[in-house]
Amino acid sequence: MDSRIREHAETLVDWSARIESGDTVVVSVGEGAHDLAVAVAEKLGERGAEYHPVYASPEMSRAYLRAHDGDFSDGSDIEVALYDKADSVLSLRGTRNTSASADVSEETRQAYGKSRQESREVRMDTDWVSTVHPTRALAQQAGMSYEGYCDFVYDAILRDWEALAEEMSQLKQILDDGSEVRIHKAGDETDLTLSIAGRTAVNSAASVAYDSHNLPSGEVFTAPTATEEVRFDVPMTIRGTQLRNAWLAFEDGEVVDYSADQGESVLGGIIETDNGARRLGELGVGMNRGIDRVTDQILFDEKMGGTVHLALGRAYDANLPEGESGNDSAVHTDLITDMRTEGTELRVDGELIQRDGVFRWEEDFE
Amino acid sequence: MDSRIREHAETLVDWSARIESGDTVVVSVGEGAHDLAVAVAEKLGERGAEYHPVYASPEMSRAYLRAHDGDFSDGSDIEVALYDKADSVLSLRGTRNTSASADVSEETRQAYGKSRQESREVRMDTDWVSTVHPTRALAQQAGMSYEGYCDFVYDAILRDWEALAEEMSQLKQILDDGSEVRIHKAGDETDLTLSIAGRTAVNSAASVAYDSHNLPSGEVFTAPTATEEVRFDVPMTIRGTQLRNAWLAFEDGEVVDYSADQGESVLGGIIETDNGARRLGELGVGMNRGIDRVTDQILFDEKMGGTVHLALGRAYDANLPEGESGNDSAVHTDLITDMRTEGTELRVDGELIQRDGVFRWEEDFE
Repeated sequence: MDSRIREHAETLVDWSARIESGDTVVVSVGEGAHDLAVAVAEKLGERGAEYHPVYASPEMSRAYLRAHDGDFSDGSDIEVALYDKADSVLSLRGTRNTSASADVSEETRQAYGKSRQESREVRMDTDWVSTVHPTRALAQQAGMSYEGYCDFVYDAILRDWEALAEEMSQLKQILDDGSEVRIHKAGDETDLTLSIAGRTAVNSAASVAYDSHNLPSGEVFTAPTATEEVRFDVPMTIRGTQLRNAWLAFEDGEVVDYSADQGESVLGGIIETDNGARRLGELGVGMNRGIDRVTDQILFDEKMGGTVHLALGRAYDANLPEGESGNDSAVHTDLITDMRTEGTELRVDGELIQRDGVFRWEEDFE
Repeated sequence: MDSRIREHAETLVDWSARIESGDTVVVSVGEGAHDLAVAVAEKLGERGAEYHPVYASPEMSRAYLRAHDGDFSDGSDIEVALYDKADSVLSLRGTRNTSASADVSEETRQAYGKSRQESREVRMDTDWVSTVHPTRALAQQAGMSYEGYCDFVYDAILRDWEALAEEMSQLKQILDDGSEVRIHKAGDETDLTLSIAGRTAVNSAASVAYDSHNLPSGEVFTAPTATEEVRFDVPMTIRGTQLRNAWLAFEDGEVVDYSADQGESVLGGIIETDNGARRLGELGVGMNRGIDRVTDQILFDEKMGGTVHLALGRAYDANLPEGESGNDSAVHTDLITDMRTEGTELRVDGELIQRDGVFRWEEDFE
């Protein structure tokens, strides 16, 4: 076993999820994530935790969803009962085919997604962490060799998380103190004003101790409402379909128009899921400079230094004032805009924070 | 996908588990059982059932058990909660290495097995069914080519279960009416008297409708107590270790002496698990003539026509009078004796039922 798989497992169990003796841990294993699952099981044994392994198979889901008549009963009592007993849920992604469920209809997906809302909420009340094990399918999607992709993944994951958390705390402070974010790109249909008053930004340092649930991470995010318009120029695959050059226009925080050069119907499907899917749940600012390229995997792309992402749908409680419920939805879909273009600015309450993708505290800032 | 995989899934879901719309089904997926899992998910979708997939990975278990300090807390609340919500549990076995956990100590296995007792009981209160998907590892263990092994498996599984159930009902009647079974083999240390008074035999026709939980099946079994001695001449692999020519001697229903040409320590480990492991939980009579050879896989071997098996450990409630609790144990280990040797008899209350492995109602009976 590549020694980095064991390091990955150790980072996940100790730094990210903070597993302790006696914890009950659900381990969700993707079809291609077996080796990481074995390393994680070893760490959980060492820590004296108890684990329950779930098989997260897109091929099973596809077969099930296509065969089902589409009338999904609400509830999923069994998963509610499961996650209710879990202290942590570790999702080990790692698909063998990124298009494994490309032929499941949007309508079926949405109906199924809605029926699972309660179990999703209970799962998100645990100390959950999502990570990814490198597979050939993911390497292919990134346009990289398998060995090259493994290097990329472990460079992004096996970092000095304490040092990055320290750097990110600066931006968290600015966003916590601020009430309005403006993102403007020259020569592009992006001029977005986001209200973040009263919201708390999360210093997402890849640990539940920071309210951060992704490994790798390296972003600061909050829950905004938006006006104006924004162009997402980072291509991505959503639900097995390519989405390119998406554009959203907002009025009173709600999407009133949208388009995309490719994948417009998938974008429409997301927006039409429910009322919450028409509003933003997240503004995230990527700060992981260890991620040096777009690989068409949201877990990595959205953390890339010099990008900003917005999510349609569900907001995270961590960003909200105590007791306030934020934007609620069955979806949470991130869309990314690259800020590393000339004439691009990110301002908080009028103050320049980032120009052309470079933060004002970074060396290259001009 | 081999069309027999879909037929297998259909037999499992419809004939064996009798899944209906709205049922909640746990699907436990072995490392090598992915293709069957996809076919089962499709059938569950068609039937309108809900499913929760569990990843049953011996490599994860091995890593966990070897890393753990061995002090397992009782409870496994999370699995109790899970199985408590399940109507059915479908275990799709199919290992990629039959020796995957050969280097886990007996002591650790036993301690872990004991700590899981409650969740095992709750699981066995569901309509559970175990089946196996053919893998190259299982073919290798059987000493067969992969294609040849697939033919063997589907010949055993895709049978006329209604007709076999009809034939087996004869033996069930004899055992239900009888109070003493005697198994005697000439020139072998086997002369066993088993008390079965008051016990109900199960016509194990591979369906929960018959209190039968294995696919394939094809045996009639009951819960006995034993005296004298028995030699098990069918070799098998138990917990990754070869067991050959095991021998047990009983007094007052309890094992008082044992030996084996190979694997004696594994046999000892089983017997020493707990008090119930020293007593018999099952007498089973194989009646599936579609299984024509020993493949070192208990799910098949114990159903083979012309064999008899005895299990050390836990008895099935279905064999017991209402309200009576039978032999209780953390283990249930089947051992097989081949009756197809000259001078072998199986009698119930003195009456000859089978000679040299041939039932008295079969053509070849002399």
